[in-house]
Amino acid sequence: MKTRAAVAVEAGKPLEITEVDLEGPREGEVMVEVKATGVCHTDAFTLSGADPEGLFPAILGHEGAGVVVEVGPGVTSLKPGDHVIPLYTPECRECEYCLNPKTNLCQAIRSTQGQGLMPDGTSRFSLGKQKLHHYMGTSTFANHTVLPEIALAKIREDAPFDKVCYVGCGVTTGLGAVVNTAKVEPGANCIVFGLGGIGLNVIQGLKLVGANMIVGVDLNPDKKAWGERFGMTHFVNPDEVDGDLTSYLVELTGGGADYTFECIGNVKLMRLALESCHKGWGESVIIGVAPAGAEISTRPFQLVTGRSWRGSAFGGARGRTDVPKIVDWYMDGKIEIDPMITHTMPLEKINEAFDLMHEGSSIRSVIVY
Amino acid sequence: MKTRAAVAVEAGKPLEITEVDLEGPREGEVMVEVKATGVCHTDAFTLSGADPEGLFPAILGHEGAGVVVEVGPGVTSLKPGDHVIPLYTPECRECEYCLNPKTNLCQAIRSTQGQGLMPDGTSRFSLGKQKLHHYMGTSTFANHTVLPEIALAKIREDAPFDKVCYVGCGVTTGLGAVVNTAKVEPGANCIVFGLGGIGLNVIQGLKLVGANMIVGVDLNPDKKAWGERFGMTHFVNPDEVDGDLTSYLVELTGGGADYTFECIGNVKLMRLALESCHKGWGESVIIGVAPAGAEISTRPFQLVTGRSWRGSAFGGARGRTDVPKIVDWYMDGKIEIDPMITHTMPLEKINEAFDLMHEGSSIRSVIVY
Repeated sequence: MKTRAAVAVEAGKPLEITEVDLEGPREGEVMVEVKATGVCHTDAFTLSGADPEGLFPAILGHEGAGVVVEVGPGVTSLKPGDHVIPLYTPECRECEYCLNPKTNLCQAIRSTQGQGLMPDGTSRFSLGKQKLHHYMGTSTFANHTVLPEIALAKIREDAPFDKVCYVGCGVTTGLGAVVNTAKVEPGANCIVFGLGGIGLNVIQGLKLVGANMIVGVDLNPDKKAWGERFGMTHFVNPDEVDGDLTSYLVELTGGGADYTFECIGNVKLMRLALESCHKGWGESVIIGVAPAGAEISTRPFQLVTGRSWRGSAFGGARGRTDVPKIVDWYMDGKIEIDPMITHTMPLEKINEAFDLMHEGSSIRSVIVY
Repeated sequence: MKTRAAVAVEAGKPLEITEVDLEGPREGEVMVEVKATGVCHTDAFTLSGADPEGLFPAILGHEGAGVVVEVGPGVTSLKPGDHVIPLYTPECRECEYCLNPKTNLCQAIRSTQGQGLMPDGTSRFSLGKQKLHHYMGTSTFANHTVLPEIALAKIREDAPFDKVCYVGCGVTTGLGAVVNTAKVEPGANCIVFGLGGIGLNVIQGLKLVGANMIVGVDLNPDKKAWGERFGMTHFVNPDEVDGDLTSYLVELTGGGADYTFECIGNVKLMRLALESCHKGWGESVIIGVAPAGAEISTRPFQLVTGRSWRGSAFGGARGRTDVPKIVDWYMDGKIEIDPMITHTMPLEKINEAFDLMHEGSSIRSVIVY
């Protein structure tokens, strides 16, 4: 069949909106009509050419929501008409990783996903005679896409696509880092570095679990109002701090934070986040994706005196299990999404969504098909 | 009163065995007749002058066992005749740290201890007119020493001093890193870097909790027999591995270790220990003390894909609570100490204990008064 898509033809070029060919679902696969998709920094990172694993031509996009239109042989958990959110981290419930309660990093289809292919090693997308790569196993910048059954979370039908698509990446990544990875307790003092689409969701996660101090750190003064909107209690602009920022943050939090979150991907900030943790028990969680080859460092004394350093991917969430719950939290008013979706536009304007992101004038842009 | 002691007169010089003056215990303090003391790498580190916080002249030693001979006013939990192990990490049970179940790093007397003084800011030791510094709050290289009540663990009276003194540092540090810090589960695959006095206790801790693979890594081939003696299942000599050691260890452990322990203080090994952890859930625990200014580093991707990095000091043990239990484990035959005490000697020969350590021909030397 034919479907409309934004194609990443090559690194550093704008996406091209065009009709592409899409094959139907094979064994264990599902075709989804994408109703809405967010545009995330990770898409921009790959499109820029900075991602060493980026493949072209490809159909990007990994933050979608839609409706099942067709299922392949052997699919049992989904049927046409089901509302779903695509998962770039699948949940097979059978691999060594899914069976270990300490991780969410299902490896069932890792290698083919990394190669931009479906689990059988082929692509469903093509443009004329040229095969197009899938991206993160999701490719939500196409009006229709095909995914493995294990990479789809079934959600309630009354949830609005143009809002809950954000649960497919940003909301879950931020909220989950608090709830699943760090398991922050009520009363904790926390610092969030970077108040973009992830950091704001960390903040609302901290508010949800009853944190005490929720300190936001950002160079952009406009982010003060954004942070406060979602529960931030203190704003720190590093440009306005005299002297050592680590000491300032340690003093502000009465000896250091119980938990810190790095939401940018800057290795210097990752060190700052660790070292502004409280001696004895402070935990720092890395969420941001650093440039290829960049390294974190610190004195081991920081760890021996009780701080710990960890990371979080997709908020430690098991998508098929946890994403429907987060959609419920949104529908129940426990968390907010609407105010973070600052821009909504048709597929034809998707390149403007990237511009808005680079300018820092959007929290999240959503494409509605 | 007078007591015999080995005095660290200045950095890099042998200890001098002499009579020193010791004042009796003041408010909240206890005088202990030290019956035996181990000689640990940390003593050698300070004596060498490499420890930036080392103070001279001082009475070193932090791995002792003895008998209470006198208690100062206000002491309620100890009386003359009680058998005790001095604690360089005290347990006041009242400070912010003691009241937080996530840490053992009691801070009640931290600042004066770091200055080589008793909590009231003075020293009990002198030599002629010269004040001598206390060391790690314990100074067990003296036949009698004075400590705060909160820095003494009361132990059973049938435990032999010349063995359980080792619980004052090495045994607890190694065993505790497994039991308290990492909380290793039965069936876990583990790697221990460095099979000295700490590493062997990590190994017996892993055996105690039912670990599956217990891989020991050491450049000294003699350590193979030592490791196996305490439960090691696989020995790796890096000199005998062709190619990349990380890849070798990851393959050996079927994808990486569930837990790794660095017991040397080498920042390159600390990185190796982290990166040989299993994706998704592997935890690396730093026990060794690195040289001043040395830094650890890695790609943040290692953490974002599920490994975590932490440290352990005094095995995460709360001394007054946990040390008596470890003495019980020894007396019940759950752990071994005797074979690790390779040398026993009188105070007069204490400099030979340092020589044996530097040669690598002892696991632990114990001084018996």
